[in-house]
Amino acid sequence: MKKFEEVTIKKDVLFEGRIINLQVEKVSLPNGKTSTREIIKHPGAVCVIALTDEGKIIMVEQYRKALERSILEIPAGKLEPGEEPILTAARELEEETGYGCQELLPLISFYTSPGFADELVHVFVAKGLYRIEEPKEVDEDEFVELFELTLEEAEVCVANQRIFDAKTAYAVQYLRLENLRENSK
Amino acid sequence: MKKFEEVTIKKDVLFEGRIINLQVEKVSLPNGKTSTREIIKHPGAVCVIALTDEGKIIMVEQYRKALERSILEIPAGKLEPGEEPILTAARELEEETGYGCQELLPLISFYTSPGFADELVHVFVAKGLYRIEEPKEVDEDEFVELFELTLEEAEVCVANQRIFDAKTAYAVQYLRLENLRENSK
Repeated sequence: MKKFEEVTIKKDVLFEGRIINLQVEKVSLPNGKTSTREIIKHPGAVCVIALTDEGKIIMVEQYRKALERSILEIPAGKLEPGEEPILTAARELEEETGYGCQELLPLISFYTSPGFADELVHVFVAKGLYRIEEPKEVDEDEFVELFELTLEEAEVCVANQRIFDAKTAYAVQYLRLENLRENSK
Repeated sequence: MKKFEEVTIKKDVLFEGRIINLQVEKVSLPNGKTSTREIIKHPGAVCVIALTDEGKIIMVEQYRKALERSILEIPAGKLEPGEEPILTAARELEEETGYGCQELLPLISFYTSPGFADELVHVFVAKGLYRIEEPKEVDEDEFVELFELTLEEAEVCVANQRIFDAKTAYAVQYLRLENLRENSK
């Protein structure tokens, strides 16, 4: 876990934003030399794999300024300070899609960009979806449109890069794997 | 592709580093209000799913300063300016593992953190691996150890979070899916 550890000699926090912080660290390498590491600190995030009763995957389309385009993603959002990931997941599912669920099962957590960022994404699977009559609304600077796709439609979207991010690609692959496991029983 | 577009009113580049740049943009939202977006610009990266003749998955262990720990990842690296992703993939595979390959097939590309970064990772599958006698060496500030895992061992590493990043979790799931498809033929 600490193999090839790089020990911090000096840390400069260069930016503290609404969502991310940037720090540059001078580190001592295993061979005694030094280097610098540019690191983004992020509060972490959740995402939710949710299937409707008809087996359709719930997605939201959203403009991503970093990419200068909109993409289809599974519902997701960042953690508020101190918030349990499962509660963030329930909140984001409700706000972005209007769905509640009876169960949220942790599937996997992964770092998205270990080379420069500590963003950890917690992936949940939602079971027992139901419509919420008056759902909480998304943040006032967030605009999303709800889509419900079959697995085959989602795979087409992966192929044509309308689905274009790691967590959603992982989710679609996961559902294909589950589907294959189910059929091979 | 441009649904809910957020138009830049003002852009401030706050940091230009060795690997990432940070810019904060003031944007006009679809409802006419304004907000700010904190964006990391990254040159993009590649990673390689490579199986040995015995069907073992090639991984490298590496310290990730952003996480303050080492993790097992598939071979990967960032694009040099103007470099074709497939050439980066061949170079990183050689430098990090000492393997060459006869074919590198593009599998998928995905953005790792679309909420705040434009890092696009190109995933390749390597075929026809062979040992290179005197491989090019890794960058002088990079320290990696080579591992070769069975699929089952890799899945244990996902479960115990020694494998802990999105691209490698995707790769392990991909190999399980391929394995299942192969067996169901």
